[in-house]
Amino acid sequence: MDADTVAEDRPTTTSTDALASWREGPTRSAVLDFVARVSGEGPTPPVPLEERIAVFDNDGTLWCEKPLPIQLDFILRRLVDMAEADPALRDRQPWKAAHERDHPWFGAAMDAHYAGDDRMLKEFAGGVLAAYDGMSVEEFEQRSEAFLRSTSHPTLGRPYLGCTYRPMVELLDHLTAHGFTTYIVSGGGRDFMRPVSDELYRVPRERVIGSTVALAYAGDGNGGTITHTPVLDYLDDGPQKPVRIWSRIGRRPLLAAGNSNGDSAMLDFTQHAASPSLRLLVLHDDGEREFAYTAGSEAALEQAGRDGWTVVSMKDDWATVF
Amino acid sequence: MDADTVAEDRPTTTSTDALASWREGPTRSAVLDFVARVSGEGPTPPVPLEERIAVFDNDGTLWCEKPLPIQLDFILRRLVDMAEADPALRDRQPWKAAHERDHPWFGAAMDAHYAGDDRMLKEFAGGVLAAYDGMSVEEFEQRSEAFLRSTSHPTLGRPYLGCTYRPMVELLDHLTAHGFTTYIVSGGGRDFMRPVSDELYRVPRERVIGSTVALAYAGDGNGGTITHTPVLDYLDDGPQKPVRIWSRIGRRPLLAAGNSNGDSAMLDFTQHAASPSLRLLVLHDDGEREFAYTAGSEAALEQAGRDGWTVVSMKDDWATVF
Repeated sequence: MDADTVAEDRPTTTSTDALASWREGPTRSAVLDFVARVSGEGPTPPVPLEERIAVFDNDGTLWCEKPLPIQLDFILRRLVDMAEADPALRDRQPWKAAHERDHPWFGAAMDAHYAGDDRMLKEFAGGVLAAYDGMSVEEFEQRSEAFLRSTSHPTLGRPYLGCTYRPMVELLDHLTAHGFTTYIVSGGGRDFMRPVSDELYRVPRERVIGSTVALAYAGDGNGGTITHTPVLDYLDDGPQKPVRIWSRIGRRPLLAAGNSNGDSAMLDFTQHAASPSLRLLVLHDDGEREFAYTAGSEAALEQAGRDGWTVVSMKDDWATVF
Repeated sequence: MDADTVAEDRPTTTSTDALASWREGPTRSAVLDFVARVSGEGPTPPVPLEERIAVFDNDGTLWCEKPLPIQLDFILRRLVDMAEADPALRDRQPWKAAHERDHPWFGAAMDAHYAGDDRMLKEFAGGVLAAYDGMSVEEFEQRSEAFLRSTSHPTLGRPYLGCTYRPMVELLDHLTAHGFTTYIVSGGGRDFMRPVSDELYRVPRERVIGSTVALAYAGDGNGGTITHTPVLDYLDDGPQKPVRIWSRIGRRPLLAAGNSNGDSAMLDFTQHAASPSLRLLVLHDDGEREFAYTAGSEAALEQAGRDGWTVVSMKDDWATVF
């Protein structure tokens, strides 16, 4: 065994290189101190391993969500394909906007949603639900994986799979190295993320929580098939996030990270009677390296100040973004 | 360190004592051979660890479900308490049957359900949904745990927590020792089983899949509360079992064990293109040590013969039941 082999056997995260892409400062210190406290490296006893649960929103928290969420690009291409195949769809929303490349229509639907008006989102959802009706879960995953592996971000000049935030991936690894179990709790589609979650985040498919349509099983004595139905099961956003965390995990998390109003309930829920907790809110204030925006995050930022959540400034706290 | 300490440090399952409560014969051999094949102990390469998923029904598969499912006893006591507190409820089903100790009414509702007629079950479900409306998930768990720790089986002369089948617990441990991840996939209530699943089966709470009402989150800036609503989210039975397995795990299992028609879809779904699979159907044919019945299992037993599932005879295949 030579020296290189020995080096490779070492854990990838050590105390000296933990959170290497984070700038020194109060935010990085708050994260490191919290993990040290939970692990019993300070004066207080360690938190039992089974309670070390960390939950992460995906869009805007672990990877880029501007100019449009990555899954929205995937869906728009599907709507364009449908409109190409059936001209009657070109006069109906959301196929009309997709076919005419009217992207602001979709952005406006999301902005209205975060402001509490779901009318456009419902029109859009009708199209999304029709887009995959009757498709098997396996075929849907093949399509989402093929898209994610072949498509690049429209303005950042990097593949979509290169749009994850390096500091957050380091945080996921640092938590895992300290006995945490990490979950994704996304408003995006659960089955859209599953094919790449382990590779991107070391979060295996069974620890991906996200939105989904209702599924239906048809048996055939030979394994059977699970297919998408045109009915929303739930949108994993807002107050649904704590409900889905409870349903899947059965515990309150110790750490939650998000970036928008849709994450506030999850951060609020992240609290234990007798253990420390950490709530992180990623602030998109870096128009040079990523994007600068607070639309859809105003209430969350306000609550962060009120409830002592830790705001992570992309501009100030991250030495590297991607 | 003395000899006793050394003995306690040994793994509880070794090749010689694996499935010790199972009688020698084709059923035990089929199980051991399957696990050996999956683990690469035979001529074929091992199945990747992440694909080694095993799913188990609970009532009638891991623990006793006669004369009434254990959770039904829990619910009946709650209905009696409600009828004691509010006389108007004593003329309405299911409070009437609970208050009059008319247990056959509930058995008839279950028999009708398994025969495809859900009218009585819906009447019963209305009572169950009202019974816990507005209760927090924490309080519900405290009540179910207190009940399970304090109540005995009505005829077997043992506490409810002693009503698990020893051979099945040995099977769970044998699978875990061979790299499997085990899940409970029960028609019973998910949150009813969670407080005891780890202790009884070494299945931690996040790997319990079961039925549930819809839950609602109300935030208060201080952790908030998740409460039961009077609306069924889903009954984890029949074709819902594969759907819930996919939703939670995102994989088809390699092994599934059940005992009733409600488990057939789950067993059918347990199939991989390139890996072995094992489908177990527990047959209650031991009126002396447990109960003898096939009501609600007729179609499953028929399919077992047709599709090559392995039928486990409690009388012939198990040396010990409890």
